[in-house]
Amino acid sequence: MKTLEKDLETRLAEDHHQAIRLWLRMLTCTNLITGKIRRRLRQAFRTTLPRFDLLAQLERHPEGLRMGELSRRMMVTTGNVTGITDQLEAEGLVRREVDPNDRRSYIVKLTPEGRRAFGEMARVHEGWVIEFFEGLSPEEKETLYALLGKLKRHLNSKEVQ
Amino acid sequence: MKTLEKDLETRLAEDHHQAIRLWLRMLTCTNLITGKIRRRLRQAFRTTLPRFDLLAQLERHPEGLRMGELSRRMMVTTGNVTGITDQLEAEGLVRREVDPNDRRSYIVKLTPEGRRAFGEMARVHEGWVIEFFEGLSPEEKETLYALLGKLKRHLNSKEVQ
Repeated sequence: MKTLEKDLETRLAEDHHQAIRLWLRMLTCTNLITGKIRRRLRQAFRTTLPRFDLLAQLERHPEGLRMGELSRRMMVTTGNVTGITDQLEAEGLVRREVDPNDRRSYIVKLTPEGRRAFGEMARVHEGWVIEFFEGLSPEEKETLYALLGKLKRHLNSKEVQ
Repeated sequence: MKTLEKDLETRLAEDHHQAIRLWLRMLTCTNLITGKIRRRLRQAFRTTLPRFDLLAQLERHPEGLRMGELSRRMMVTTGNVTGITDQLEAEGLVRREVDPNDRRSYIVKLTPEGRRAFGEMARVHEGWVIEFFEGLSPEEKETLYALLGKLKRHLNSKEVQ
């Protein structure tokens, strides 16, 4: 009985470690990739990841997004969305319009110039992402994609708040 | 020839999509987890992820860390390390000491009270991480860990700057 308890304890400690090690490694990979993207965006386009991220969200929503939606959709930053929008508007890459569904608020859209500038960056950015994942074979990438899909479903389930 | 070219093009487009889809899914999982940790740290300990992250780095380095090292080691934020250190010092959780190797600069260390407070949070945090990854079997966790290890080696290789 004593031995069984000890084994269980050891196994629990191992499971324990397994999840923590996995999480820290996932975080490390994500940080390595975002770090490289940040540096390359600065070098190639003299821009920042929050600016790129904001344009990417608008590109996916041609109907425009309200400021709150835009903040929630940002993938890599919890930065100052209003400040970034002001900058991009001054540079002619985005514009604010009165929201047709709520005349007291605004929606943000890409301008044609913003769409062109983002399109150029997005093409180059996609090449970088392909390069980052080239260390894995197509089959390994599929396996990783499937495992992350399973993880994502669990995270979005009611069991995990 | 025309057909072959087309096939190649299709395959390239697919590889292309595979890497981008994979990266967005990895980022989504990381964001889902850090979002949950942020909310739970606030609810359970009235603290923030940058504060937790800073204490975690100091806990791993009992000899103390210089401010620059501390900034570089932070896993989840590029926040205001000096401001957070000031706060934690005022609360008695960390202290600054003159760096024995360079008397013009400081190193930051946990106080015994900081070590105790962090230990309590870390135990609870580990339970959360175990819960987040419970959607995967131990074998799936091992596979995910190994694939991320291969990705990390590629990202740290000379091929990827």
